[in-house]
Amino acid sequence: MNNFEFKNPTKIIFGKGTIEKLAKEIPNDAKVLLLYGGGSIKKNGIYDQVKTALGILDVVEFGGIPANPEYAVLMKALKVIKAENITYLLAVGGGSVIDGTKFLSSAALFKGDAPWDILTKNIRTEKGMPFGTVLTLPATGSEMNSGAVITREETKEKLAMGGPGLFPEFSILDPQVIASIPERQLANGLTDAFTHVLEQYMTYPIGALLQDRFAESILQTLIEVAPKVLADPTDYKAAANFMWSCTMALNGLIQKGVPSDWAVHAMGHELTALFGIDHARTLAVIAPSHYKFNFDAKKEKLAQYAERVWNITQGSTDDKAYAAIEKTEAFFNQLGIDTKLSDYTKDYDGTAEEIAKRFADRGWLGLGEHQSLTPEKVEKIVKMAY
Amino acid sequence: MNNFEFKNPTKIIFGKGTIEKLAKEIPNDAKVLLLYGGGSIKKNGIYDQVKTALGILDVVEFGGIPANPEYAVLMKALKVIKAENITYLLAVGGGSVIDGTKFLSSAALFKGDAPWDILTKNIRTEKGMPFGTVLTLPATGSEMNSGAVITREETKEKLAMGGPGLFPEFSILDPQVIASIPERQLANGLTDAFTHVLEQYMTYPIGALLQDRFAESILQTLIEVAPKVLADPTDYKAAANFMWSCTMALNGLIQKGVPSDWAVHAMGHELTALFGIDHARTLAVIAPSHYKFNFDAKKEKLAQYAERVWNITQGSTDDKAYAAIEKTEAFFNQLGIDTKLSDYTKDYDGTAEEIAKRFADRGWLGLGEHQSLTPEKVEKIVKMAY
Repeated sequence: MNNFEFKNPTKIIFGKGTIEKLAKEIPNDAKVLLLYGGGSIKKNGIYDQVKTALGILDVVEFGGIPANPEYAVLMKALKVIKAENITYLLAVGGGSVIDGTKFLSSAALFKGDAPWDILTKNIRTEKGMPFGTVLTLPATGSEMNSGAVITREETKEKLAMGGPGLFPEFSILDPQVIASIPERQLANGLTDAFTHVLEQYMTYPIGALLQDRFAESILQTLIEVAPKVLADPTDYKAAANFMWSCTMALNGLIQKGVPSDWAVHAMGHELTALFGIDHARTLAVIAPSHYKFNFDAKKEKLAQYAERVWNITQGSTDDKAYAAIEKTEAFFNQLGIDTKLSDYTKDYDGTAEEIAKRFADRGWLGLGEHQSLTPEKVEKIVKMAY
Repeated sequence: MNNFEFKNPTKIIFGKGTIEKLAKEIPNDAKVLLLYGGGSIKKNGIYDQVKTALGILDVVEFGGIPANPEYAVLMKALKVIKAENITYLLAVGGGSVIDGTKFLSSAALFKGDAPWDILTKNIRTEKGMPFGTVLTLPATGSEMNSGAVITREETKEKLAMGGPGLFPEFSILDPQVIASIPERQLANGLTDAFTHVLEQYMTYPIGALLQDRFAESILQTLIEVAPKVLADPTDYKAAANFMWSCTMALNGLIQKGVPSDWAVHAMGHELTALFGIDHARTLAVIAPSHYKFNFDAKKEKLAQYAERVWNITQGSTDDKAYAAIEKTEAFFNQLGIDTKLSDYTKDYDGTAEEIAKRFADRGWLGLGEHQSLTPEKVEKIVKMAY
């Protein structure tokens, strides 16, 4: 097991009817900016619940944060923060709204001229404007971690940021919100959380027995609840397990002491930036090819995953490892998620070369748990995913 | 799944050579009280490592905190805190030293006349004197939770306290400390952590799929590493997994959203108070009888535990559940832990009646996950454990 540090101060408030606890978590004298996305919260009743819960707090609103939170839109929100002397941010939404809010938390206190530098210059946020979240879409785990991914349409870039100042002070997780989420988004959330676990687990054995079992526990739980959530999103038991699994998949716990990969995300982000494919679906496109291409480096963990998660106990290590990749792809397909780039666009010619070039231009010369994934290898993996 | 709130702000610093990071975690201007136990840290080198790591910080020392931290001793430490204007506490030890430090953290800021009231009047500590820990004995999980158990010899009482102000600010976990722990203490630590998980798991199914799997993960890991740790405590891989499992067994995570029992601890504490039997050993004495006595209420979870942790897949629910109790008792025995009260004392006559009376006198009329364990039932369980 590798040495590690772990600190996660976010307060989770989980369960039925928890949105009404909102006002207790925000200082009475705060001036709050309520941030949300495309307005679905106004249709499903969550907006009304939040407004009622906020009571007499002084609240300004900013809606319209798009999926893959866009820098230009966030810069408009930043103007509101400055103009209105906002002191507290409240994200009501999924990963995009929460990630956008994290960017604003950092940008609001940023001393430089161009907040985009936070992303391009890898500036760690030690202290941001305080914020909380009401999660409306389980998927990214952003509600209990300190990372964010921001998109800039102008340059077709999608970059990550983070730092200990970016943990939400609190996150309210009411699994009842899942009842009104469209099936497409549910399938995306399941795929996203599942892949988050794989990125932190599907590397090589390092003797972190408990972290491995925790990762497998999340994968098993997602596999168990996925068909139930899709068949009936009002099934509270399935919804609650889905929601908590998504949070635990990326709150830092399972990555402590182990190597992690994240190459699937790095490649997937480019597919979203180039084609606008849903984030989760890009992961399902890249993951099977990535695991096949890096089979030798990952086969021990693939075989362990085969045995413990998919109950594949027959055959050699190679047999089990390969079968596990097939099972993973079949799982995504069963959720209604296509796993080839050509399922999403007919314009894929040259994509692999373009992504490899972008990685080289950014100086990303060795991704993955062994830092061995060169732009040339990235090109091959993306081609395998056509 | 039940509604829950979860917040655990303790910073964990885990791994080889981490004690040297100590000074960075304590404010430069702090006046530190270094608390420790019977002096084993002076023999095994940890004291020297800590003193070196503390560098130029202003440090006063208080040693001699006994196992089952004793109120009278702690009151002497409280006098030192007041006399020396201490501002920061540092526990270097196992659960007893850390629990004692938590009592002092609370008592140092307590406004009342008699700090014992914190325990007898169940006063929650919202804010205590800040403290950190260097863990020298994995077992209790106290290094990452906000609870403590304090003993008062004078009244033969052993009572619990807690509150959000009692999380350590940081805890340093260097698995290398395990190399010098005597076998008896290692066996105790394994048993203690194992039973902590059982208390939060062996109740009834409530559909908390992930919490169940996390609990099973900790049990499986403890079973896997226990013989290795006992055979060779310098085996770093086994030691690291043992240490992290003990912390995760009682840092709040696995108890969120599920019922918990804790009757084994309640009865066990009385055996320590009456006979001075090691805490962990009292749990191993009580647990098998407790599960047999409450068989019908717990058999579904017992059978799940049988299947997933012990791979017992044959037979009826009752068969599997019963076999799991046998496996648990055998596991304790394999660690060198006796599981009958008569193995520890020949003076056990009347113990069951005495404990039942104490529970009744304290108004503890319904322990366990169903609050159904009356003093009469406690008497029967303790008798079964003779």
